[in-house]
Amino acid sequence: MTTHTTPETLIEADPDVPTVRMVREFDAPRELVFRAHVEPDLVKQWMGPDSIGMDIDVWDIRTGGGYRYTATREGEAVAHFYGAVHRVDENEKIVQTFGFEEMPDAVSLDTLVFVELPGGRTRLEALSVVYDFESRAGMLASGMEVGVNEGYAALDRVLAGLAEERA
Amino acid sequence: MTTHTTPETLIEADPDVPTVRMVREFDAPRELVFRAHVEPDLVKQWMGPDSIGMDIDVWDIRTGGGYRYTATREGEAVAHFYGAVHRVDENEKIVQTFGFEEMPDAVSLDTLVFVELPGGRTRLEALSVVYDFESRAGMLASGMEVGVNEGYAALDRVLAGLAEERA
Repeated sequence: MTTHTTPETLIEADPDVPTVRMVREFDAPRELVFRAHVEPDLVKQWMGPDSIGMDIDVWDIRTGGGYRYTATREGEAVAHFYGAVHRVDENEKIVQTFGFEEMPDAVSLDTLVFVELPGGRTRLEALSVVYDFESRAGMLASGMEVGVNEGYAALDRVLAGLAEERA
Repeated sequence: MTTHTTPETLIEADPDVPTVRMVREFDAPRELVFRAHVEPDLVKQWMGPDSIGMDIDVWDIRTGGGYRYTATREGEAVAHFYGAVHRVDENEKIVQTFGFEEMPDAVSLDTLVFVELPGGRTRLEALSVVYDFESRAGMLASGMEVGVNEGYAALDRVLAGLAEERA
């Protein structure tokens, strides 16, 4: 990988438990990567595939908080996502649920860990668990890796902008 | 089992996924069993082992809500439990997280389903998932079945009281 290549996100399905693990590194300090997950004005600039917009109703990422947003394509609502926030350790960890109205029984428990790396870089480790392997297969078949990779590429740009503001 | 025996709760550890399934029937209509999970004044009368009291700080069981309480023994705090509520379908389903301050990394995703049975009875089906089999083993080794069985026996009495009020 050269430094000019967009880093790929590692997406791993564990053979023994119905989890999905995603690991991605960012060329930005941990507090900025964390901020970009917590501040709704930043989140809507990067999360999800490029073709999808976010209308955020609630974005309250603190222990006991929650979030709710509508995914839009060309201004039309295509899905309604929501979750409850179990625990937030500032700059370190977010534990939350994830679901969407269109499949009310689908739910995952997601843990995001923000790891400080040398040189002002950050590794984001996300671990999701669902109730069974069928649900995980559905998740993986949904095209999530497009949303993840396009989203994180956009996050790289948002982080570069934040770093410039601070410089 | 005779009708005078307290019904046991079925507690099942799935061999293939790190879940725990609990099934218990109650001789009370579904809306009362649901109420007894949602109203804090009722919850504190039955939840947990007989030797443990509950000081409830927050009990807000609705989509986007949460809960937080202190478990007490002879008036002394012994543990602090909390969770976020992912989704509530009234009288039908509660999906929430469960954790405690004393082990900040321990978390489960819990789904409670309230099933209407003939004759004004109710089956409660609870399904919890954790991230790995080690965490589940810890859960099962924690003496949870004492709390579950003593708690549900107390819930039987609370439900009998509620049914009398309505008669």
